[in-house]
Amino acid sequence: MAVLRVLHVAGPLTLTEVAARATVSRPTAEDAVADLLNRGLVRESAPYEGPRVVGRPARRYEFNADAGYALGIDVGAHKILAVVSDLGGDVRATFRTDVDPELAAPDRLAAMRAALRAVAAEAGVNLSDVRALGVGTSGIVDPTGKVTLSGHLPGWTGTHLPTELSGIVPGRVVVANDSNLAALGEHWRGVARGVDDVVYVLAGRRISAGILLGGRVHTGRHGAAGEIGIMRSMGWYDTARLLRDGHASSEELVNRLAAGVAATVLTIDPEVVIIGGGLSQAGDALIEPLRIKLADLCLYPVKVEASTLADRSVALGAIRLALDEVERELFDLG
Amino acid sequence: MAVLRVLHVAGPLTLTEVAARATVSRPTAEDAVADLLNRGLVRESAPYEGPRVVGRPARRYEFNADAGYALGIDVGAHKILAVVSDLGGDVRATFRTDVDPELAAPDRLAAMRAALRAVAAEAGVNLSDVRALGVGTSGIVDPTGKVTLSGHLPGWTGTHLPTELSGIVPGRVVVANDSNLAALGEHWRGVARGVDDVVYVLAGRRISAGILLGGRVHTGRHGAAGEIGIMRSMGWYDTARLLRDGHASSEELVNRLAAGVAATVLTIDPEVVIIGGGLSQAGDALIEPLRIKLADLCLYPVKVEASTLADRSVALGAIRLALDEVERELFDLG
Repeated sequence: MAVLRVLHVAGPLTLTEVAARATVSRPTAEDAVADLLNRGLVRESAPYEGPRVVGRPARRYEFNADAGYALGIDVGAHKILAVVSDLGGDVRATFRTDVDPELAAPDRLAAMRAALRAVAAEAGVNLSDVRALGVGTSGIVDPTGKVTLSGHLPGWTGTHLPTELSGIVPGRVVVANDSNLAALGEHWRGVARGVDDVVYVLAGRRISAGILLGGRVHTGRHGAAGEIGIMRSMGWYDTARLLRDGHASSEELVNRLAAGVAATVLTIDPEVVIIGGGLSQAGDALIEPLRIKLADLCLYPVKVEASTLADRSVALGAIRLALDEVERELFDLG
Repeated sequence: MAVLRVLHVAGPLTLTEVAARATVSRPTAEDAVADLLNRGLVRESAPYEGPRVVGRPARRYEFNADAGYALGIDVGAHKILAVVSDLGGDVRATFRTDVDPELAAPDRLAAMRAALRAVAAEAGVNLSDVRALGVGTSGIVDPTGKVTLSGHLPGWTGTHLPTELSGIVPGRVVVANDSNLAALGEHWRGVARGVDDVVYVLAGRRISAGILLGGRVHTGRHGAAGEIGIMRSMGWYDTARLLRDGHASSEELVNRLAAGVAATVLTIDPEVVIIGGGLSQAGDALIEPLRIKLADLCLYPVKVEASTLADRSVALGAIRLALDEVERELFDLG
């Protein structure tokens, strides 16, 4: 639907402008806009506020961002974080809850459903108006949304998330790995805006990486791209234990982080490395020594930035994934 | 030029078929084909050999693969290998010469020019008919074709190859890193045909990697993608010394190779890993233990294949790069 796409990208526009940009005749544009107004996907926008001209100003139309909502949810070992936005991507509410890392899969799914209901309620949004739900989960995810491998969520391997969550909203449920979605979230709303080749490192109790190439999530053959952390020589596997036991000096943490990040940087030569997750709250105390260590290990100094999205990168990436799905459906791109 | 593109992709075709596929009128197709025949880019093809039909069979036209030539050259520390093909990609001649690794840059460039003249002479091709020259070189190459970093060709860093070689042929000179071109060569003519996400490992006296994503060379921000070998922990840096001194057991070689390959595989999760270069001549004696070691280090068993292009992968990739350039010019895609 070219007319809706034009209004989404470039609105508010007059009918004449719509016709020109969609390369359709003026009567065709008029019919299309009337139909979209009827369906609630387009609305008349506020009157033009510029200098006054002679005669009645032409009406202007825009994509109706309130025509529905998108949900995004980040499910990890220790927390669940849900976000709701309108179709323009404006976040309406955020809901966060801690969960027990030992939670069995059915209980974790129940906690996810509760979080989705809670965030919708907080925003005053009916779940029946949600057009798509994006889910970011730790573990390897196949193209159907099944978790094919999860090393640390009990019973999570084999969970088909679209099936488990399909009753919640009428729209589609789309699933991806959490680090990958965090990279997408940073590209959309964080420090990777305008940057297309990105390595995002989710560094907390566990460390994992997500990769964006050409502005798109790179998942690889098995959905396992970015899983550099499983190489034992990188030392990423037991950061949690080190942190818990208080064994890790900050130098040792930086060295371990840098080894895996360097392997990733040397492989894909990205424009920026973003450090997110709990460890990123250390800010420059972590970023600066990491930058120095990476410059030492890599061929070229790589730009290293701390995430500014706090713990919301994954959920925002999930919203972006959901919005991509909605836009694909609305604009008939898929 | 839609008509030429249609004939290149789908020829031989009758004028009616050309018009239909290029979505132009029959008279437009007729004019375009007449013009292309005049310019020598299209030729009438051999008569249709199928069942006889009543009446005079319609003439059929095809892209004229002899309308020019492409050159590809691979320049390394120990050898120079040049290939010439017609515009359809049929290889007409190959020329190989050993060079001294200590050769100064001007002498290496002179040896390249001599190799290009030799391969053209062997094929009976005039250098003035060469429409593009592709160059694969070791080291990091910037988008203009300058070698920004070469660790082991004396004086090579800073060499702007298009300038140095521009007098040889009238067409453009396009340059890329050798491992990247080898990946492209394997995608075009080797074991990666039909496979779009590829890691190619050039394993000989030195080891380096090239990456193909979505069927295209992935070079990265500085042209340094695939340079995993510079991480000392991978042990790739002194394979040459190990081999020379006879210190390397085959197990040690496999372990070193596997560490770097695993880091690359875990980062991008490719469909296949191709081992080329001198070591690949060991065939299954190398590939089989490498496969086993990689399955141990990675999340999923990755497909590992030995190159079947012997030492021609890079030069064939260079030809493909040159043909891409020619096709872009001919079809006005750029």
